[in-house]
Amino acid sequence: MKGMERKLRVGELAMRLAAFGFAVTASALVGSDREVRMFFSLEKRAKFTNLKVLVFLVAANGISAGYNLLQLVRCFVGMMKGSVLFGKGFAFVVFSCDQIISYVALSAMAAAAQAAFLALFGQPELQWMKICNLYSSFCRRAGEGIACAIIACLFMIIISCISAYNFFRLYGSNKGRKNSHGR
Amino acid sequence: MKGMERKLRVGELAMRLAAFGFAVTASALVGSDREVRMFFSLEKRAKFTNLKVLVFLVAANGISAGYNLLQLVRCFVGMMKGSVLFGKGFAFVVFSCDQIISYVALSAMAAAAQAAFLALFGQPELQWMKICNLYSSFCRRAGEGIACAIIACLFMIIISCISAYNFFRLYGSNKGRKNSHGR
Repeated sequence: MKGMERKLRVGELAMRLAAFGFAVTASALVGSDREVRMFFSLEKRAKFTNLKVLVFLVAANGISAGYNLLQLVRCFVGMMKGSVLFGKGFAFVVFSCDQIISYVALSAMAAAAQAAFLALFGQPELQWMKICNLYSSFCRRAGEGIACAIIACLFMIIISCISAYNFFRLYGSNKGRKNSHGR
Repeated sequence: MKGMERKLRVGELAMRLAAFGFAVTASALVGSDREVRMFFSLEKRAKFTNLKVLVFLVAANGISAGYNLLQLVRCFVGMMKGSVLFGKGFAFVVFSCDQIISYVALSAMAAAAQAAFLALFGQPELQWMKICNLYSSFCRRAGEGIACAIIACLFMIIISCISAYNFFRLYGSNKGRKNSHGR
């Protein structure tokens, strides 16, 4: 049981590190995304702030990165101290925050992916033209950022399953059992 | 404990019923959304199939509704039979399906909301013009559909928390406890 716990802790630490890394990369790639093109004598700029959804993506991934950094410290301290279970209140806070961050990061990623889809293929029926043929380097970098955001989301989803496990197992059906753990 | 379990079951049943209702409504509203406008002698049509994301929204909500209908039957039978806990394998299947449906429904909703935002306000820097001034009834109905999808998502998120509880409490830390339940 103890060995299993330790593996879970190390797993959580690795996942949070990965989620942190990919979220930071996504934020940095999209947040520094801009391109200036000259069409004859006309200067045209594409910037990530032109699309509100990319600002939302940068913000969501920034928050996710900051939060995972804090959690990394918590995981690390927990492993050093060797404590395995934590109280219901704290487990609930971690569980709730993980759920919220997962859902917000996923929403931002899905909305950004939709905008990227429009930028790539356009929607001629609605007179929305594709722009990636004009701003190719802007689009490529945004695409890389969104890819990182997708990977960060996948890690956050696994992390939120781990924290759900950490929280709800404290409610193990203990009818007729000795309560040997202090809660 | 038994009373609490019963409340949880009734709560899950009510949530699934609500999620089913809102998902069906969202699918029906968006899936029947079309508008024909005459601009001088030119006939212009807006249809939900013009936007791939609305097709995705209809599909995701349709799947969510069908799934919740099946789960409603399962909840109802469970309540009739009076069984409270179910096995780990089945709890895992319900937990996984709820998670997947929640995340897919949320992604579809966020992407559709992004497209709706563009349709409402446009993105002049990228030459994407707002279209809701042209197709007002199309946009209104799509908006109502997306609102229903948002509510359905919120219910699915609560449901996935309930099923996470139902699954992970089976892993209650039982070191030094008598295992009084057959598993």
